[in-house]
Amino acid sequence: MNSKELFDKICAKRSFLCVGLDSEFGKIPEFLKREQNPVFEFNRRIIDATAPYAVAYKMNTAFYEAYGVSGWVNLRMTVDYLRANYPDMFLIADAKRGDIGNTSKMYAKAFFDTIGFDAMTVAPYMGEDSIKPFIGYKDKWAIILALTSNQGASTFQFTKDQYGGLLLFEKVINYSKKWGTTDNIMYVVGATKADMIKDVRRFAPEHFLLIPGVGEQGGSLSETAKIGMTDKCGLLVNSSRGIIFADSSENFAEVAAQKASELQLEMARLLNSRIPELQEPDIS
Amino acid sequence: MNSKELFDKICAKRSFLCVGLDSEFGKIPEFLKREQNPVFEFNRRIIDATAPYAVAYKMNTAFYEAYGVSGWVNLRMTVDYLRANYPDMFLIADAKRGDIGNTSKMYAKAFFDTIGFDAMTVAPYMGEDSIKPFIGYKDKWAIILALTSNQGASTFQFTKDQYGGLLLFEKVINYSKKWGTTDNIMYVVGATKADMIKDVRRFAPEHFLLIPGVGEQGGSLSETAKIGMTDKCGLLVNSSRGIIFADSSENFAEVAAQKASELQLEMARLLNSRIPELQEPDIS
Repeated sequence: MNSKELFDKICAKRSFLCVGLDSEFGKIPEFLKREQNPVFEFNRRIIDATAPYAVAYKMNTAFYEAYGVSGWVNLRMTVDYLRANYPDMFLIADAKRGDIGNTSKMYAKAFFDTIGFDAMTVAPYMGEDSIKPFIGYKDKWAIILALTSNQGASTFQFTKDQYGGLLLFEKVINYSKKWGTTDNIMYVVGATKADMIKDVRRFAPEHFLLIPGVGEQGGSLSETAKIGMTDKCGLLVNSSRGIIFADSSENFAEVAAQKASELQLEMARLLNSRIPELQEPDIS
Repeated sequence: MNSKELFDKICAKRSFLCVGLDSEFGKIPEFLKREQNPVFEFNRRIIDATAPYAVAYKMNTAFYEAYGVSGWVNLRMTVDYLRANYPDMFLIADAKRGDIGNTSKMYAKAFFDTIGFDAMTVAPYMGEDSIKPFIGYKDKWAIILALTSNQGASTFQFTKDQYGGLLLFEKVINYSKKWGTTDNIMYVVGATKADMIKDVRRFAPEHFLLIPGVGEQGGSLSETAKIGMTDKCGLLVNSSRGIIFADSSENFAEVAAQKASELQLEMARLLNSRIPELQEPDIS
């Protein structure tokens, strides 16, 4: 999927919502734990309930690896289910990998070829050759960690370069945008501080940004969109716990649908006010 | 395992060799590919052949994830085999993970609880809360990426901080060493430039360093030891391809043993000349 195709899907659905399947076994509803593959059953119901409102799903690999081989079975079943039933969805492996070239090549093989994700998050610390293998796949994306919203993020990401004066996360964007294009590189940008998104847009005016954790991690959707949206949208906004764990009763999927629908409605409003293609013609 | 126990094993075996099981399916001997779990069979024979000369094994998770569920089965079988037959070995997951706190906690669960590694490599970009969960386990280790030896490493790792003047990898060591102790933090330091190891020792005079890729990645063992060894050794030196893929015939395990033995002999010599406990008493 290239950026135009992704934008077309966003326009068609009036949504730039990514649902994060951080499906920790301990947190799924009790009644599902009797199923043979409880996490897959949970994901399947969440997907069926939220798919009308989303353009992307993000799977955080840690929550699957924590259960060893059976975790990988659940991850694989979920991707296969999405591909079979919702072939248009943009699927992100939130894996934050990054290693020397021949190892990154194996990670790309793992998540792009073997499992079939469209994109994966990658860590920039090791530089160009650690990221290049993810970019070499047609229609696949590397989503590079730039500015994260966690508590300790600033310690290294805000290191100010003595030569050039850029902060490390700015330098990461400034270098890495030359390694690929707006069709194969996105950036992870935490939404907790809106002025930071403004700063990111100085360096990456057109790239898609993956914004994790609007809601539970404290970012405001409308602030984020006001500052970060381009005229081709340029945003995927993720919500995980705020949707998938909004309710733990037998009605969890309906409540998840409700939460996803609320976000989609706000997104439609934000898109309508910013994107010319979506605006009703003035017939007065 | 704490640092004293690791040092005791190093003294007993006269070795600080870590064998890297980068066991890419495509590179293992043809005759093994007919086995039910070829990669496990390969690992089992490499382990039996090299165990007399090694104190640690490192599994690069990419080479297992690339084969999906069956890759994880092979990884798990290998760790179980090591634990059952060589319970004293120090087992490293070369996974380079790192994420927000609750996600890192799941990665720690995956590699320490579910699979049973002693240590895992972690990426520092996201700061303290991304690393702390790995340090919270008794007798387990976080091996933090400091200075890697790949081609693109310098782009970000050599960013010179305008405040304080440290290079980013120095800053990573300087901050992170306060998050744990010499019993639960090591650093990954590429061995391609010996003067860099000298620099690392200014900031981490006593921590164990994991040196990847002596041999195939161009580092010299004796140079590395001369500069990096402490009087408690303080080094684990890894060799992967130089041992495990030294031969692709039916004799591959014997050749691997030979290569490991050559490294161990040189390590014994280097240890003898540096560690007081290992030196013969002068009875003249």
